[in-house]
Amino acid sequence: MHQGGACAVFRCSDCRPSSIFLRVKSLTEHLWFEIAGRRGFINITPTVAELVRRSGVAEGLCLVNAMHITASVFINDDESGLHHDYEVWLEKLAPHAPTSAYRHNRTGEDNADAHLKRQIMGREVVVAITHGKLDLGPWEQIFYGEFDGRRKKRVLVKIIGE
Amino acid sequence: MHQGGACAVFRCSDCRPSSIFLRVKSLTEHLWFEIAGRRGFINITPTVAELVRRSGVAEGLCLVNAMHITASVFINDDESGLHHDYEVWLEKLAPHAPTSAYRHNRTGEDNADAHLKRQIMGREVVVAITHGKLDLGPWEQIFYGEFDGRRKKRVLVKIIGE
Amino acid sequence: MHQGGACAVFRCSDCRPSSIFLRVKSLTEHLWFEIAGRRGFINITPTVAELVRRSGVAEGLCLVNAMHITASVFINDDESGLHHDYEVWLEKLAPHAPTSAYRHNRTGEDNADAHLKRQIMGREVVVAITHGKLDLGPWEQIFYGEFDGRRKKRVLVKIIGE
Repeated sequence: MHQGGACAVFRCSDCRPSSIFLRVKSLTEHLWFEIAGRRGFINITPTVAELVRRSGVAEGLCLVNAMHITASVFINDDESGLHHDYEVWLEKLAPHAPTSAYRHNRTGEDNADAHLKRQIMGREVVVAITHGKLDLGPWEQIFYGEFDGRRKKRVLVKIIGE
Repeated sequence: MHQGGACAVFRCSDCRPSSIFLRVKSLTEHLWFEIAGRRGFINITPTVAELVRRSGVAEGLCLVNAMHITASVFINDDESGLHHDYEVWLEKLAPHAPTSAYRHNRTGEDNADAHLKRQIMGREVVVAITHGKLDLGPWEQIFYGEFDGRRKKRVLVKIIGE
Repeated sequence: MHQGGACAVFRCSDCRPSSIFLRVKSLTEHLWFEIAGRRGFINITPTVAELVRRSGVAEGLCLVNAMHITASVFINDDESGLHHDYEVWLEKLAPHAPTSAYRHNRTGEDNADAHLKRQIMGREVVVAITHGKLDLGPWEQIFYGEFDGRRKKRVLVKIIGE
């Protein structure tokens, strides 16, 4: 009965009521993006929400991260004025030009500033899944942030829970 | 026996010794804050630690995130001089005034700087739970960071593990 | 039979096909570092990858965080020119001197700048584990970032999954 085929979903009569045996589930998805310009932000919340639905996870965690080191995944407001402000601000904190100011660019790249901007905006977000849905605040939206576009790049969505 | 009532916590005799069957548990809690001023930091470590205890999770992860996009959750020192330094530094990197310098503020808000400051300090922390407790370093304390207060805001604590 | 000793790995015949019962596994490891100078970056990817292998986790999450508040764990490129650029940039955004400019340093410390730099670079990364391996992009490398060295410090690696 216990040798490979039997099944049990159960509550534990000798445990506290909160102890419920649950199934671990996971989902892995790679999203592809190609931004036409050097920089841009894309709201990926609907895509991530759909993956959560498909995962069947009711309670868990959803990791969303850029797989490239000149891009970010972050959570903030879907408001174009704010996105403009981010653009101006990041350019001030880590200017693209003069590209010769960065030692990294001696490798033949011109994207050192993108590696810096991405550290400000972050690589990843971890979002709770509650009752089968992304547990986001009222204005929280998940963005892909590109700082060195004009080529294909990936975002990883990893969902784990029960 | 396996139909809804029975219980088992077991080691697998035909698995490697490290394979232990464990119960997935989760806990979700929303904490509310209202800071009287525009900015402020609150040490929420004792509250999070108590939620970990209540969750019954022995080994797992604890996500703590701001649910609002002008606030942060971060880990650093509980030292008032440092908090003053953060305040001065963030105001230098992303000044509140002149509010007209930000396009976001044309929406009627005056909090564009708060959206920027929060990106520096971060949205969330993920803390390990080991032997039933937050696995924090000697000086690590979890803070709620408010950059546009004077209204109620939430922090989400999501605990998952076994 | 279910009272402490028996074992079961099973599929559930009355669940949906995607519902597979899996073993929750976890691994906790503390890594120690002592950087001879005040600042430095160390590529810890091979160490973390080996811990993932040892954990036996096929699908899960790997948290890697600094346990000290003047250090970072971050993901970026293993390119010495870029690391030089980070050093110059962080020193510009949060200069070490004059140390008297920071109120935190009145406590007898001279490391206030390190607490600021670490917020830019971040405390932690969460990396997906897929098919038993760190699910990293082509250039993603995990670094320990030290901003106030010359003493022993720890990094926590917490792996959870199935």
